[in-house]
Amino acid sequence: MKLSDRQEEIIRLVKEQQPITSEALAEKLGVTRAAIRADLSILTMIGILDARPKVGYIYSGKSSNSFVYEYISKIKVYEIMSKPITVKEETMVYDAIIFLFLNDVGTLFVENEGVLTGAVSRKDFLKIAIGGTDIHKVPVGVIMTRMPNIICANKNDNAYNLAKKIIEHEIDSIPIVESLEKLDDKEQFKIIGKVSKTNITKLFVKLGGQEG
Amino acid sequence: MKLSDRQEEIIRLVKEQQPITSEALAEKLGVTRAAIRADLSILTMIGILDARPKVGYIYSGKSSNSFVYEYISKIKVYEIMSKPITVKEETMVYDAIIFLFLNDVGTLFVENEGVLTGAVSRKDFLKIAIGGTDIHKVPVGVIMTRMPNIICANKNDNAYNLAKKIIEHEIDSIPIVESLEKLDDKEQFKIIGKVSKTNITKLFVKLGGQEG
Repeated sequence: MKLSDRQEEIIRLVKEQQPITSEALAEKLGVTRAAIRADLSILTMIGILDARPKVGYIYSGKSSNSFVYEYISKIKVYEIMSKPITVKEETMVYDAIIFLFLNDVGTLFVENEGVLTGAVSRKDFLKIAIGGTDIHKVPVGVIMTRMPNIICANKNDNAYNLAKKIIEHEIDSIPIVESLEKLDDKEQFKIIGKVSKTNITKLFVKLGGQEG
Repeated sequence: MKLSDRQEEIIRLVKEQQPITSEALAEKLGVTRAAIRADLSILTMIGILDARPKVGYIYSGKSSNSFVYEYISKIKVYEIMSKPITVKEETMVYDAIIFLFLNDVGTLFVENEGVLTGAVSRKDFLKIAIGGTDIHKVPVGVIMTRMPNIICANKNDNAYNLAKKIIEHEIDSIPIVESLEKLDDKEQFKIIGKVSKTNITKLFVKLGGQEG
């Protein structure tokens, strides 16, 4: 969607002289009020201008991209999440790395009797692999990041908020969880999915390719 | 941006009876032509309807999300690329891994006298690290993916096309290059940036957070 020259001119005038009535705008543009009625409807509808009754038009401060923001803010985590790959705390690091390659993922999640207890990333594995440790003898439970130190999300969260967490906390993948009954007053979660930078990149490709 | 009930009704009528004139639409809706003029302008402008002179309105087949597509398709690689981290072919794998951690990146690019010759990812490093090789004695040049087997992009390419390449080829990071003079009839490139899934995720967060 591209704005017309007249619409751009209207935005410029409103920014300068707000609040401004449609009569005043029409006069400045040298046209009738009827001539700009459609332009004003469009600009109000897409949220660039606000129409204040008995006051006139004001600039909303939103850019013409705010419709992209609105569209993106409606996408939910469950629409983009994928299947999590899990191992047990007792799995040896070497075996877990092989499992990581076979599943072609960047992060493994760790479960104990259906409860999410940890996460191990390719970075964690690389760190231990160059450290001189015998990775055949160390179980995943020793090197993983342990709950509650893992950023989790809910399937009904916004995909946007999740992407923001990925960037802010510099993580690759977020487990999507559901609450289980508490144990010893500690919250427990079941893992039902995951969203990584790959899922976000796929979503971006889907949005950009969406013509139908 | 949300369409009004009348706009949705107009789209429905056009889909059913296209091509249809504004007179016919107004009659079916029981209103005057003037009353729906702004609605028709908006629907034509955002690309949902096409206005054919002397024929009437037809449904373009585009969804109301096509403006997201249009917006995304205009973002260029140079707007989102970041600084590439490079090593030399002679750098030992162990030292390169340390360099990878210190720079907190997922992929190192390999240069030889200002020419891009290869790339090594965290995955490549992990593979060699668990293989029993002495990573202090093997240089990066031995394990890297070598040009021309690397997917590259230009700074003026669309960010969308680049994200598509990342997904299709299952890669983490794409070097952004400029052509140099050919050597022995072989194309040579200088690396000037890189775009990874992190850059795409950041872009998504920027798009979703863009209200100003």
